[in-house]
Amino acid sequence: MNEQVRGKFISFEGPDGAGKTSVLRAIQKRLVDQLGADRVMYTREPGGNHISEQIRRVLFSPENTDMDGRTEALLFAAARRQHIVSEIVPGLRAGKVILCDRYVDSSIAYQGAGRQLGEEAIWQMNQFAIDGLLPDLTIYLDVESAVGLRRIAEHRADQVNRLDEEKLAFHQTVRAAYLRLYRAHPDRIKLIDASQPLDQVIADVAQTIEQRFPDRFE
Amino acid sequence: MNEQVRGKFISFEGPDGAGKTSVLRAIQKRLVDQLGADRVMYTREPGGNHISEQIRRVLFSPENTDMDGRTEALLFAAARRQHIVSEIVPGLRAGKVILCDRYVDSSIAYQGAGRQLGEEAIWQMNQFAIDGLLPDLTIYLDVESAVGLRRIAEHRADQVNRLDEEKLAFHQTVRAAYLRLYRAHPDRIKLIDASQPLDQVIADVAQTIEQRFPDRFE
Repeated sequence: MNEQVRGKFISFEGPDGAGKTSVLRAIQKRLVDQLGADRVMYTREPGGNHISEQIRRVLFSPENTDMDGRTEALLFAAARRQHIVSEIVPGLRAGKVILCDRYVDSSIAYQGAGRQLGEEAIWQMNQFAIDGLLPDLTIYLDVESAVGLRRIAEHRADQVNRLDEEKLAFHQTVRAAYLRLYRAHPDRIKLIDASQPLDQVIADVAQTIEQRFPDRFE
Repeated sequence: MNEQVRGKFISFEGPDGAGKTSVLRAIQKRLVDQLGADRVMYTREPGGNHISEQIRRVLFSPENTDMDGRTEALLFAAARRQHIVSEIVPGLRAGKVILCDRYVDSSIAYQGAGRQLGEEAIWQMNQFAIDGLLPDLTIYLDVESAVGLRRIAEHRADQVNRLDEEKLAFHQTVRAAYLRLYRAHPDRIKLIDASQPLDQVIADVAQTIEQRFPDRFE
C-alpha cells in the first residue's frame, strides 16, 4: 500500500430539506467523470461493514423504545468508529476522494442540540470515536428552517403536510447548532446557500471543492 | 416513589485472581441477613435489561474479530449507560444497597491501560456514559500480580497452567492502573489487601463498608 497516495475526505452536512442527497449525487457524478469511478467513494454511516450494521440493528429495533438518549449517542459513535476503521481509512489509504453523507457534525447538531444532550458533551465523546479524523472539507448546506420543512412536505408523501410549531422549533435548533459549528471551524466547514435553485447549489459546491483542492486531487 | 429513601451504590473492583466473586457473595449474604433481601441488589454489567444484552451480543459475537478497540470501548460504555438507567438508578430510587461487580474503574484499568487505549481517554469518554454517577464506595481488592495469576491457575482448569511473561505484564499493567485510580480517588476507593486469607479479606471489606456507612444504611 502506497502511503504517499493519500485520499481526501469530504463530508456533507445540513438539516433536512437542504437537498443534500441531490447535491451529493451530482457531485459524485462530476468527480467520477473527472477522476474515474475507482478514485471516488460514496459512503454514509453506518456503512456496509457487518459490525456497524449490527449496531444499527440495536439502534433501530422497534422493541428498544426504552433506550436512553446517551446509550443511543454512544451506539452511534461506536458505529461511526467502526465505519472509520473498516471503510474510511482504507479508502483514504487507497487515495480515494471520499464523499460522506453526514459525519460528526450531524451528531452535534441532532443529538447535542436537537435532542438536548449537549453540544460540547457530544463533541467530546465523539473525539474518542474519531480519534482526530476530521474531514478535509465539510460542505454545509444551509437553508432557512421554514424553507427546508416546506421542501420536505412537498417532496415526501409520507411526511405530514404542514409546518407544525414543534417541527419548526426542532429544525431551527439543529440549524443554529450547524451555524455555531460553521463559525467555530471556518477552515474546515464551508457554508453553501442551499435556498438557491438546485443547479446553483451544485455549482457552488463544485466551486468550493475546486478551491479547496486546486490540484484537482492529483 | 419516595425520593428521600435513596440507596447506596458500592462497586467491587480488582484484577483477576483477587477473589472478587467469593468476597461479593459473602458480603451480599451479610447484607441480606442484616437488611433483608428486598434492600440488597447484586448486579454486574450488562445487567438483565434487553438493550444491554443486545449490545453484549454484538461485543461477543465470534464473527466480530475485526472489531476496533475503540468501537469495543464505546459499546461497553453504551451497555453501561443502559444498565445505569434501567437498573442502577431505579434500585437507588427504591432505597437499595447495590453491589455492582465491576464498574467504570474496570474500563480504565483494562481498556485504558491493559489494552492501551489511554486511561484518560477512557475516563473522559465514560463520563458521558455515567453522567456523574460514581459509586458511593468502591472496594478495590488488591493483589500482587504473581499471586493473582497463580490463584487463577490453581482454581480454573480451563486456564493455562503457568505464568507466562505476557500475562504477567498485562496483569501488572492493570494493577498499576488500579493503584493510580486508588491514589487519585482516595475518598471513593478503598484498598483491601486481597493477598490475605479469604476470611480476613471478607472481614476487612465488611469493616470498610461499616466505616463508610456507620448508620448501617438506615
